[in-house]
Amino acid sequence: MAGLGKKVLIVYAHQEPKSFNGSLKDVAVAELGRQGCSITVSDLYAMDFEPRATRNDITGTLSNPETFSYGVEVYEAYKKAALSSDIVQEQKKVQEADLVIFQFPLYWFSVPAILKGWMDRVLCQGFAFDLPGFYDDGFLKGKSAILSLTTGGTAEMYSKTGVSGDFRYFLWPLQGRTGTCRQGAGARRGAAR
Amino acid sequence: MAGLGKKVLIVYAHQEPKSFNGSLKDVAVAELGRQGCSITVSDLYAMDFEPRATRNDITGTLSNPETFSYGVEVYEAYKKAALSSDIVQEQKKVQEADLVIFQFPLYWFSVPAILKGWMDRVLCQGFAFDLPGFYDDGFLKGKSAILSLTTGGTAEMYSKTGVSGDFRYFLWPLQGRTGTCRQGAGARRGAAR
Repeated sequence: MAGLGKKVLIVYAHQEPKSFNGSLKDVAVAELGRQGCSITVSDLYAMDFEPRATRNDITGTLSNPETFSYGVEVYEAYKKAALSSDIVQEQKKVQEADLVIFQFPLYWFSVPAILKGWMDRVLCQGFAFDLPGFYDDGFLKGKSAILSLTTGGTAEMYSKTGVSGDFRYFLWPLQGRTGTCRQGAGARRGAAR
Repeated sequence: MAGLGKKVLIVYAHQEPKSFNGSLKDVAVAELGRQGCSITVSDLYAMDFEPRATRNDITGTLSNPETFSYGVEVYEAYKKAALSSDIVQEQKKVQEADLVIFQFPLYWFSVPAILKGWMDRVLCQGFAFDLPGFYDDGFLKGKSAILSLTTGGTAEMYSKTGVSGDFRYFLWPLQGRTGTCRQGAGARRGAAR
């Protein structure tokens, strides 16, 4: 029972439960449960999760209604507890988690837009980081993160001499995201989308 | 009139017309117009552009309704002219363009989700590339692309020795996207989001 009492959040971005991604998510749920973890899954497509960063993310009035700055308004709204409920719910899951697993197929060398929207909207200033309060001092310090992704290409295509270039280059911006909030980041990969 | 008759598509991803991104877009429209180009702008937030890659992107029946594979279904739908109208409209704009300019603020070391969704959904197999028919043989061969982006951090933060690391690492996956379709890719950057 290595994971006894540990809390795991799986942020899962695939449309089809019977997909390889769906199976990887299911295996993680089963295995981590067997180890004594409690697991929460955010099934982004099933939730019809909103990826667009808009004025709707702030309830009530804006601090500057004349010129909308998303970053400024979301930061203020976080401090006033005035973010939209879907963001608040995801932030609560992240806050409670010891480990966050991102499970997704690689779309254009990165996460699918629905998952990018989760990152853009949930990991806002005030919650995940501040200035100062980023990288080594990020607010998610002490948590771990795993990128678990599948690709349409072969391993050879994503090697240093392969046609798509070294796989690690694609992971850099993703690992930068988790690094900014000071999560430890690992990666594992599968062979099919 | 250096650009006489050239067609330019600006894919623009900012919520606020009065933002620095909005100004960069406006200046590009004015200057390219002055040079004799014809310009089309896809204002993604104003269009409420859908970023999620779902079954709704395919009109009519699926080739495999039992197990949904987005990539397979979209490829088949492209060949049957059965993609949703919002995708078809954007593909037409790309097809007609000699140059595509992506104008956006950097969100978590990449494009905002709404623009990632444009890339995920519009640049589909069959339209932008095929297998074979990618990288040097991509279907957007001969077109040019510019990444015009703004950052929240300073230039120093994004240098090789800066806290965020070399800016070019973030651009790699983005340039990979344009490279797969064989667009020439350049980048310029501004100092504020």
